[in-house]
Amino acid sequence: MEDSTLFIAGDWGTTSLRLTLCRGAEVLGRANGPGVGVQTGALETIFRSLSKGWIAEHGPLPAFLCGMVGTRIGWIETPYVPCPAGSAAVRRAAVRFILDNAPVTIVPGLSCSNPLGAPDVMRGEETQIFGALAVMPAVARGRHLLVLPGTHAKWAIVEDGMVQSFLSAMTGEIFALLRVHSVLSMGDGNPAAGSTGGFAKGIARLKAMPAGAIMHLLFEVRSRQLLEAMPRDEAMDFLSGLLIGADVTAALQWFGTTTSVMVIGEPALAARYGEALEAFGVAANYLDGATCALAGLRALFVNTKRGEI
Amino acid sequence: MEDSTLFIAGDWGTTSLRLTLCRGAEVLGRANGPGVGVQTGALETIFRSLSKGWIAEHGPLPAFLCGMVGTRIGWIETPYVPCPAGSAAVRRAAVRFILDNAPVTIVPGLSCSNPLGAPDVMRGEETQIFGALAVMPAVARGRHLLVLPGTHAKWAIVEDGMVQSFLSAMTGEIFALLRVHSVLSMGDGNPAAGSTGGFAKGIARLKAMPAGAIMHLLFEVRSRQLLEAMPRDEAMDFLSGLLIGADVTAALQWFGTTTSVMVIGEPALAARYGEALEAFGVAANYLDGATCALAGLRALFVNTKRGEI
Repeated sequence: MEDSTLFIAGDWGTTSLRLTLCRGAEVLGRANGPGVGVQTGALETIFRSLSKGWIAEHGPLPAFLCGMVGTRIGWIETPYVPCPAGSAAVRRAAVRFILDNAPVTIVPGLSCSNPLGAPDVMRGEETQIFGALAVMPAVARGRHLLVLPGTHAKWAIVEDGMVQSFLSAMTGEIFALLRVHSVLSMGDGNPAAGSTGGFAKGIARLKAMPAGAIMHLLFEVRSRQLLEAMPRDEAMDFLSGLLIGADVTAALQWFGTTTSVMVIGEPALAARYGEALEAFGVAANYLDGATCALAGLRALFVNTKRGEI
Repeated sequence: MEDSTLFIAGDWGTTSLRLTLCRGAEVLGRANGPGVGVQTGALETIFRSLSKGWIAEHGPLPAFLCGMVGTRIGWIETPYVPCPAGSAAVRRAAVRFILDNAPVTIVPGLSCSNPLGAPDVMRGEETQIFGALAVMPAVARGRHLLVLPGTHAKWAIVEDGMVQSFLSAMTGEIFALLRVHSVLSMGDGNPAAGSTGGFAKGIARLKAMPAGAIMHLLFEVRSRQLLEAMPRDEAMDFLSGLLIGADVTAALQWFGTTTSVMVIGEPALAARYGEALEAFGVAANYLDGATCALAGLRALFVNTKRGEI
C-alpha cells in the first residue's frame, strides 16, 4: 500500500540520473543511473530497475523527475514555460502519466527572451532555482541574480519567487571540448581547484584585456606552454579562468550592477565562479546544486499534492 | 644526376601533406599524404614513399618543407624565429639534413609578443606570407594587415617585407569542435558557403551586440533551433558568422584602423572572412593559401640556393 508521504525524486540530466527516495525532508535511499544522453536502454526500464527495491518494500510510489528527461530525446516531451514563471506555472505545465499504478510527473523547462534579446531555454535548472527559494527563504523575496554553472551556465534574475529572465553561456561545454579534443588538450584529468595559480592568472588576464578578446586569448593557453613552459595543469586552470572570467564579466554587464550573486552548483565549480565574481567586485553566496535539485523536486511534489492530486 | 632547378616543395600540416615537384615556377607533379597529427608511420617513410617515383626519374632532389613537420611531434624540431622577421632570418634558422644524398630543409616558425602582450606562435603561415609577398610585390612594400584563416586564424602585420607582429585566434578549431562534438552539433557536413543566409545573420547578430557577448551568443545557436525552428544548415552558418565575426571585430580593434586586409587561405573560408571584414567596413583582397605556400617554399628554395648552398 502506498505511503502518501513517500515519493521518488529524480534529477535526470544528460550525463547522469540521481534518484532519491524521500519521506518529507528525510532521505531514505539513493540510486544512480545513466543520463538521457548516454543511456542505451529505454528510460522506463532504467527507472523501473532502479526503483523496484523501493516499490517492493513500500508499494507504488509517485515520482517527480526534472531535467533532460523532459526533452524530445527523453522519456516524454514537456513544454517550455515562458518567463516570468514561478513554481505554480511549472507545476501546472508538468506532464503526468501512470506507470505501474503510480503517477510519474515530468517537470517542464523554462523559456524566455534573454537580456541579449534572443530566445533562451533551461531544463532542470528551474527546479534547482525553486529549491534554492525553498531552502533559503530570503532569496524568495526581492530581486536576486543567481548563476548555475555547468555544461551550459545559466544566469537568472529571480524577483519575488518568479524567474523573470535568464541567460545561458556555453562556458562549461567549451572548456570540456578544448580540454579533451583541442590542440590545447593534454589529457582529460580534472584540474584540482585552485592548486596551480593558473585559474587566478586566467581571471586576471581576462580582466586586464578589453571586452571581446576571448577568441584570441584562448590561443595563449598553447603559446604559453610552448614559449613560457607553462605546466599542463596550470594551463588548464588558466583556460578555465579565461572562460569563466569571460562568462562572468559579460553576464554582470547584461544584468546590471549587483553587489552579490547566489552561486548554485557543484561545490568545486561554484567556488571558481565565486572567485571570478569576487575578482569583479561582486560577493558570492553558495548553495549546493544537488541539494537544491532535491529541495526543488520536494517542493513541487508537496505543493502538487496539496493542490490537485 | 640531380637537376639543380628541380626541387620538392612540401606543405606538411597537422591534417595533411601536400608535396609538389617543381622546376622553377613550373609544377611537374603533386602527391598528397597524411598530416603530422594523423599519420601512423614515420614521416621519413611517408616522404620517401611519396617522392620515390620522382627521384627514380630525376635523381636525388632537394626538398623544402614547412608547417607542423618542424615541431617536436614532426620530423625534426626547428626553432621559432622571433619577430620582426623576414624571409632571410627564416632561411638562416632553417634546419637542413641529408636524406638519400639530397638536402631536406625544414622551415622554422615565427614567434612574437602579440598585440595583446602575450607570446604567440605560427608555423607554416610564415611561408604563405613570404609567398604572398612573392606573388604580389605591392604587399612587399609598405604596411599591410593580413589574415590567414584556418584551424587557428593568424592575423599578421607585415611592413616592408618583415613580419612585425601577429595574433592567433582559436576560431576554426572552436567552430569544428562545436559543429562535431557539442550540443549544437547536427552532423559534420560542411555547410555550403552563403547558401542559407545564416552566416550573414550571425555576423549581423555579433555586430549588434556589445563586445564580449560571444560566450552567451553561442548558446543561441541551440535555442533558435529549439524555439524558432532554425534549420540545421542555417544554424551552422549562423555559428560560423558569430565566431568569425567575433574574431574579425576584435582583431580589427587590436591592429588599429585599416581600410583593407589581405585574406590568404582556402577560397570558401577566405570568402567568409571577406564578408565579415566588409560588414565591419574593411575591404578584403584575396590570395589562395595553397598557391602562397608553394610560392613561399619556392622563394625560400631559390634564395637559399643563390646564397649559401
